Amino acid sequence: MGYPDEHIHPHATGSAQKTVAQHQESQDLTFYAGWFCPFVQRSWISLEEKGIPYQYKEVNPYKKEKHFLDINPKGLVPALEYKGKALYESLIICEFLEDAYPEHKPHLLPADPYDRAIVRLQLDHVSKTILPAFFRTLQAQEKSKQQEGLQDLYKGLRQLAEKVKGPYFLGEEFSLADIAIAPWAVRDYILGEHREYKREDVGSGWKEYAEVLEKRDSVVRTCSDREHYEEIYGRYLRDEAQSEAAKATRAGKVIP
Amino acid sequence: MGYPDEHIHPHATGSAQKTVAQHQESQDLTFYAGWFCPFVQRSWISLEEKGIPYQYKEVNPYKKEKHFLDINPKGLVPALEYKGKALYESLIICEFLEDAYPEHKPHLLPADPYDRAIVRLQLDHVSKTILPAFFRTLQAQEKSKQQEGLQDLYKGLRQLAEKVKGPYFLGEEFSLADIAIAPWAVRDYILGEHREYKREDVGSGWKEYAEVLEKRDSVVRTCSDREHYEEIYGRYLRDEAQSEAAKATRAGKVIP
Ligand SMILES: N[C@@H](CCC(=O)N[C@@H](CS)C(=O)NCC(=O)O)C(=O)O
Ligand SMILES: N[C@@H](CCC(=O)N[C@@H](CS)C(=O)NCC(=O)O)C(=O)O
Repeated sequence: MGYPDEHIHPHATGSAQKTVAQHQESQDLTFYAGWFCPFVQRSWISLEEKGIPYQYKEVNPYKKEKHFLDINPKGLVPALEYKGKALYESLIICEFLEDAYPEHKPHLLPADPYDRAIVRLQLDHVSKTILPAFFRTLQAQEKSKQQEGLQDLYKGLRQLAEKVKGPYFLGEEFSLADIAIAPWAVRDYILGEHREYKREDVGSGWKEYAEVLEKRDSVVRTCSDREHYEEIYGRYLRDEAQSEAAKATRAGKVIP
Repeated sequence: MGYPDEHIHPHATGSAQKTVAQHQESQDLTFYAGWFCPFVQRSWISLEEKGIPYQYKEVNPYKKEKHFLDINPKGLVPALEYKGKALYESLIICEFLEDAYPEHKPHLLPADPYDRAIVRLQLDHVSKTILPAFFRTLQAQEKSKQQEGLQDLYKGLRQLAEKVKGPYFLGEEFSLADIAIAPWAVRDYILGEHREYKREDVGSGWKEYAEVLEKRDSVVRTCSDREHYEEIYGRYLRDEAQSEAAKATRAGKVIP
């Protein structure tokens, strides 16, 4: 066991801290979040985009406290409670928000059935191809493995970027396809500093797209200060992280 | 390279053959399928359940023929063409059919937003936990690895079965949660014959649930004769299969 992952900065900083401060009152929807978590950020961006009333509750998921395991037996953030019912899984939460708050605009899935499917294909690609390569690159200790991960990541990001109409995936309309990848655009500088990753080396407009994503207001409002992300990623970079994602990556298993 | 996966029986047999024969006419929707494929069967069950007009086209996805790669660049079945637009990924196709044919009953996703989310959690569980364990168990050559895979599979199936209200996942209503796992209920006898798998060893009502699934009319209508499935699974059991799923499983990567 490496450095215990429980020891993380206890709360959001920077602009995310302000957003948290504005969401302290009790609401129908309680959002169980970790300020540092890219999966959390997906659901958080959706909440902010749609202006859904929510109460933010900071959880340290590594502690696996009983009250939290009652909400999500997997012990992962994000999770939510909506009128007493529990839900988890970042993208499923995002789709739930679409379904449960139809009057809240913007819609983050297009109305046309085929366009919706195309957005879902992009989500599938992020989950199956990009995220595993991101974690492998981060955790690899041997130079050759780092390079292998990086090339897989570049390939995955290139395939994603090729499908972006610009400025967003669907064109002018911001959608779940953008939300699914945005938190990793925000965090890719870590790979830049430690794994020779360069946005411009991806090609196919990834650099321009990533810049558009990280400037989106809802993305900015859910970001903490970089120094605190670095603390967390240090454990991944030394392959000491004990998160479920880190352990799965190490074992060659699916990220939960 | 082992036994080439291209050499598969060229068409459906048994009840699936009759279903194929009834779907030869040109329609707005062309369904590119492989009779043997469990992922295909998911989308096929949805088409049959909803009575959507479709033309069935048999594809051997291992041949990677150009006309098919134009439809699905990943070269996997199922895929479809709908009014000239291409789509793939079994569960995304199922959701698309819901969205594109709203007047066709039954609905395979419940109307309530929370219930929909609960169905999606079950789909996520099948993809991330059950299928990887199924393939690992199938392909493992060492006894200890087979046992390890089998225990993972039992655990995943138990977690799934625990959530089944009965007879179906949601109760009386048949849904995507049932469709997502049904093709593997149909095929689990392969593990029974070669990997000491027993439905009753899973517990939590999996045996009863699996029996309900394999008797559903739409499931029966999309099944071929067992002897032809066996031919295909032989390659997996000897770990000679060259499918994308088999290669990913061997490499400890995500099944595409
Ligand atoms: N597939 C999940 C992944 C969530 C996840 O891995 N969250 C991490 C924090 S970024 C977590 O809660 N980790 C706790 C642990 O690994 O023990 C989702 O999309 O919501
Ligand atoms: N994730 C895909 C998987 C589809 C898949 O793996 N299909 C197999 C047949 S069962 C295939 O086309 N294999 C061709 C190959 O692996 O080259 C889905 O759900 O549709």
